[in-house]
Amino acid sequence: MYDLVIIGAGPAGITASVYAARKKMNFLVITRDIGGQAAWSGDIENYTGYQFVTGPELAQKFEEHMRKYDILVKEGETVTGIKRENSVLTVTTDKVAYETRSVIIASGKRSRELGVPQEAKFKNRGLTYCATCDGPLFSDKAVAVVGGGNSALDAALQLINIARQVYVINIAPALVGDAVMRQKVEASPKAVILNNAKVTAISGENMVSGIRVKTDSGEEDLAVEGIFVEIGLTPNSEFAPLTRKNAFNEIKVDSSNQTNLPGIFAAGDVTDVPEKQIIVAAGEGAKAALSAFRYLSQHKF
Amino acid sequence: MYDLVIIGAGPAGITASVYAARKKMNFLVITRDIGGQAAWSGDIENYTGYQFVTGPELAQKFEEHMRKYDILVKEGETVTGIKRENSVLTVTTDKVAYETRSVIIASGKRSRELGVPQEAKFKNRGLTYCATCDGPLFSDKAVAVVGGGNSALDAALQLINIARQVYVINIAPALVGDAVMRQKVEASPKAVILNNAKVTAISGENMVSGIRVKTDSGEEDLAVEGIFVEIGLTPNSEFAPLTRKNAFNEIKVDSSNQTNLPGIFAAGDVTDVPEKQIIVAAGEGAKAALSAFRYLSQHKF
Repeated sequence: MYDLVIIGAGPAGITASVYAARKKMNFLVITRDIGGQAAWSGDIENYTGYQFVTGPELAQKFEEHMRKYDILVKEGETVTGIKRENSVLTVTTDKVAYETRSVIIASGKRSRELGVPQEAKFKNRGLTYCATCDGPLFSDKAVAVVGGGNSALDAALQLINIARQVYVINIAPALVGDAVMRQKVEASPKAVILNNAKVTAISGENMVSGIRVKTDSGEEDLAVEGIFVEIGLTPNSEFAPLTRKNAFNEIKVDSSNQTNLPGIFAAGDVTDVPEKQIIVAAGEGAKAALSAFRYLSQHKF
Repeated sequence: MYDLVIIGAGPAGITASVYAARKKMNFLVITRDIGGQAAWSGDIENYTGYQFVTGPELAQKFEEHMRKYDILVKEGETVTGIKRENSVLTVTTDKVAYETRSVIIASGKRSRELGVPQEAKFKNRGLTYCATCDGPLFSDKAVAVVGGGNSALDAALQLINIARQVYVINIAPALVGDAVMRQKVEASPKAVILNNAKVTAISGENMVSGIRVKTDSGEEDLAVEGIFVEIGLTPNSEFAPLTRKNAFNEIKVDSSNQTNLPGIFAAGDVTDVPEKQIIVAAGEGAKAALSAFRYLSQHKF
């Protein structure tokens, strides 16, 4: 029986784990990966104390900070559910079940999927959700970025430096990201922007070789070897159906990171705190751990 | 007319200023000092990304981060009030008044005072509220620490390394801080612990030369040259009487750092967020700045 299970090891989960370790709580961390979205971020200039650091660098510093303590980290496990029986919470994963007195959900967000039938088949076979991770694989090739907001523009700008041609497939009538980034993309001779454009199919043998796009002028096939999906994020909150959520499936928390369920706390991008920032997630993780500690102190089990 | 006035430049105010600068808001920072309580902290091991850093080092990194941007900082000014007329907020200081559309209160906390008549006279003449700052001045002297919690024990442990004798004057029947620290203080031959003890007077010509203490066995005068007051903190919230506060005079905020007053946000130790931690204050400062930015975007003035 653990005092605490922390789900996720991005900035929120890692900070929660550092605080829990310093409080000598009996806890474990269950996570698919270490560093969360921070590990795939580009340049970071707003993590107070680091004027300039890259995402992978900061994620590594976070991981080292966590590893300084003797923390049990179950990496590569996926949480599938949380249930309560009296005062015992059970966190189930794809592998095993853990009993605990409290939980911090810091499972972050994942990329939204396109929703075309061939999506699963081509994942990691030309179709990706992370330009920072996979962009370098497409040197001098033609690629498509799907999306029209800041993350799509950021991906397009990264790919303009790498690929031969970059299609930007935007479902809206115009790009909606920051003016500076929009202008840079529009000014690039490598970029072809398709507005009012919807992806209807992906083609290829084993690897992506084309994308079908429906625009005002009909459907057309574009020959691309890479497809970067940048159409937003969705919270990893499905395994906690009883927590109260907002319209975006983000878990509602109060200013001490309590959810509506006793003993269950949440922190970081999975919550309804609107600011999705590394420094915010770290602060929320600390609050959640201290709230869980206080909860355990105040209850007799 | 500013978009935003940030009051305070501790971890919350500095992070808010970095975010406001990156949003190109028209703002200024009013503060008595830079770094806040972080600047007087000892060793810090729980600011995620820095496994080990001293308070002054981290405060300097924060200040450098802020100074990287072209931010107007009014240092050495004390805010005396905030008033509203229609949609204009006016922040008055001991020197001048500033008009603004929004305010972030990040004014932190200050040490609670002893409440003896001679306190004002002896401030910085032997009487101090910061062992880290002033401890080194009392090499081989006799000093008194007033208090019995963690900050008093921390001060006592610092002073045991420096001073000849350390009286711990504790108003409660026993010390209440962490067991490890308590045991260290109790084990020191330099420490004399007085429980159920209350300071009634301070004596001295120009500088402190003694302290009068009332205990169960009557009043006695102790010859000390230094007095370290460590009896807790009180929020710097008096200049904002219309914000809703809790019983400790902390300003109430929601999970996006809004107070009850439109356009007025708060972050860090001055708020009712119970966790008084640097990483939490930094995260809250970021949230407050982004909330203020959103507030300005959503309102026509």
